[in-house]
Amino acid sequence: MRYSQIFAKTSKTAPSDADCVNAKLLTQGGFVLKQMAGVYNYLPLGLRVLNKIQNIIREEMNALGANEILMPALTQAENYQITKRDNLDILFHLQGRDESELVLNQSHEEVVTPLAQKYAFSYRDLPMAVYQIQNKFRNEPRAKSGLLRGREFNMKDMYSFHANKKSLDEFYEKAVLAYFKIYERLGLGELTVKTYASGGSFSKYSHEFQTVHEVGEDTVYLCSKCRVAVNKEIYHEQNTCPECGAKDLEEKKAIEVGNIFKLGTRFSDVFGFRYADEHDKQQSVEMGCYGMGPSRVMGALAEIFHDERGLIWPQSVAPYQVHLLDLGADEEIKTQAEKLYQKLLADGVEALFDDRSVSAGAKLADADLIGCPTRVVISKKTLAQDSVEVKKRNEAEAKLVKTQELKF
Amino acid sequence: MRYSQIFAKTSKTAPSDADCVNAKLLTQGGFVLKQMAGVYNYLPLGLRVLNKIQNIIREEMNALGANEILMPALTQAENYQITKRDNLDILFHLQGRDESELVLNQSHEEVVTPLAQKYAFSYRDLPMAVYQIQNKFRNEPRAKSGLLRGREFNMKDMYSFHANKKSLDEFYEKAVLAYFKIYERLGLGELTVKTYASGGSFSKYSHEFQTVHEVGEDTVYLCSKCRVAVNKEIYHEQNTCPECGAKDLEEKKAIEVGNIFKLGTRFSDVFGFRYADEHDKQQSVEMGCYGMGPSRVMGALAEIFHDERGLIWPQSVAPYQVHLLDLGADEEIKTQAEKLYQKLLADGVEALFDDRSVSAGAKLADADLIGCPTRVVISKKTLAQDSVEVKKRNEAEAKLVKTQELKF
Repeated sequence: MRYSQIFAKTSKTAPSDADCVNAKLLTQGGFVLKQMAGVYNYLPLGLRVLNKIQNIIREEMNALGANEILMPALTQAENYQITKRDNLDILFHLQGRDESELVLNQSHEEVVTPLAQKYAFSYRDLPMAVYQIQNKFRNEPRAKSGLLRGREFNMKDMYSFHANKKSLDEFYEKAVLAYFKIYERLGLGELTVKTYASGGSFSKYSHEFQTVHEVGEDTVYLCSKCRVAVNKEIYHEQNTCPECGAKDLEEKKAIEVGNIFKLGTRFSDVFGFRYADEHDKQQSVEMGCYGMGPSRVMGALAEIFHDERGLIWPQSVAPYQVHLLDLGADEEIKTQAEKLYQKLLADGVEALFDDRSVSAGAKLADADLIGCPTRVVISKKTLAQDSVEVKKRNEAEAKLVKTQELKF
Repeated sequence: MRYSQIFAKTSKTAPSDADCVNAKLLTQGGFVLKQMAGVYNYLPLGLRVLNKIQNIIREEMNALGANEILMPALTQAENYQITKRDNLDILFHLQGRDESELVLNQSHEEVVTPLAQKYAFSYRDLPMAVYQIQNKFRNEPRAKSGLLRGREFNMKDMYSFHANKKSLDEFYEKAVLAYFKIYERLGLGELTVKTYASGGSFSKYSHEFQTVHEVGEDTVYLCSKCRVAVNKEIYHEQNTCPECGAKDLEEKKAIEVGNIFKLGTRFSDVFGFRYADEHDKQQSVEMGCYGMGPSRVMGALAEIFHDERGLIWPQSVAPYQVHLLDLGADEEIKTQAEKLYQKLLADGVEALFDDRSVSAGAKLADADLIGCPTRVVISKKTLAQDSVEVKKRNEAEAKLVKTQELKF
């Protein structure tokens, strides 16, 4: 992509109302623009990052054998009356012109449970799992923290349905592994731990995935042996590692990047979703739910991977792999840069080509702000040596590479 | 994909409340499930079709040089007060807990105009075009016709911004060609005509793209020479072909599958979106908007491409290219079918493998209902001749093909 053709440009100044690093850098880099508190526009570069995060999640959900579907945001309020969640503070209520009471889904248990019920009748239909990547709406009184807490935000939510607790437990453990694989691919692997949290009315524990980092808003107590932590909420009753029993848990700041719950029969029972077992006896369906917000993950990545000059995207989600700059107005520089850009395209390398007629300083500053993993510069100096200057965004030193030896 | 692993299955009976062919067949085929009037769940097969339609549209919008972005559904009502559209009947209103008045976007002029304003200041920034593929919300009193008229529905909306009318006109004509290319790829090329419609308060004409077919709800007057029609609304004042002047326009039924408008300065003026021209003088920005609903297109395809046994998807949007069936419980049939399925996967052919233990009749009926372009059957009879039976969904005759000669 030619940077001159991209609609949204970088900005030298931070938005005056940016209350956190991700809002500041993502806005300055031209990735997002705030519509209002907790509601963002995704601009061309930002949508690319969001799509890459979604696709990594999608691949791992598919590998689990889950089916991708797409449920609506708009739903009859009646479904929330059935589950007694129609008085949730965060639920947006609407009035249909046919006098119907409607809501915007803040999660999809009220939709997916009666949906699954239409297609599963027998033990032979279980287990099954479905997921979607879709926007949720939550009427937050104080949406803040950029992409971390939204009123409209992107979510992957998976739901699993089982004949018994054993089947749910087995799938739940597989989902934990899938989640770790996703964080690994997102560049968050080493930092992210499974965290025991309150199970609410559903079960003893639920689990959060917390990325341990000083910028985090959450507090967790980390077991150094187990890649496991305990959430602050339950630390008063669970102050040892739930897996190895270790007593020396360490207090750490962290960002929540996923959460999973065993729902048991909480939702299936109220919708009357039952199945016929091997003896044709009706049994309750056990459910699990598994959330991960691609937009929140994008915010977390920006919080963690940046320096004072801008973003430093992990390779797997970078908007482009290579940021190509031509420095200098020389015709020969333009020609060689164009040639290299065409070669990168032909080789299938995702390249952003800053072909604007602006100063070298502006181009270099923008490349740092946008944060593609590799910067390639063509200038009079590099051409004199039949070379380009290659610099990794996360390294200090640039090096000259012969143009014909350039590889990605 | 193994059909046994797909969550949503076909149904022998039509939904009791299906009011049209697309709702009936798409529900029976396991593509969608109605949540409530005008609101649908997309099941695994349906989401695949929707995604394929979206991707064809996306490729042609990108080829036009438009930038893909993603705007929110939730927006401050104030933006609609500015354009005096806050009293639109179809606008859903919501109340934020911070006392803010919110709406769900029914279209995005109120979001995209101030958004573009942030990034375009000078004639050098124009023309530019952005688009998104996103869900719209319209508070329809009587949503009906399955996917054709929704309260929540998927839309591609593109907006273009220009320094003058000439630039808008040029882009508008390119967009018309892009639209025709999309309908061509969707299998609707021959049937779809550019239709002159009322320009409302914006300009003399807007244009609809109408797919001429007896199932359509709209009436158009067709010029047989020009691939052009006139909408019923304006026929009383425009009863000749606006392009060649022909008088013998033919009354036809049609389904609307897209519409484009020249907005002029209607929205840019009220938001104060102006640009500096070559002489540094502030000028009004001319805008165009270009809508096409992937979910509506999916409904239209189902209305048009079916027979009494089920759907007949065009190759370009079929959920799978090949529907493989093994008929008979013989171990050798199972083995050979599995072998062929693995070969199709290895060859990159999108294959749906009906590996269930159900009757041959049920499998054949489901294949017709789901409507993949090519059905491949392995049975005792075909194996006896080292062959498979290949049948196109849109042809009557099946033929035997030697297994090793099978090609897609």
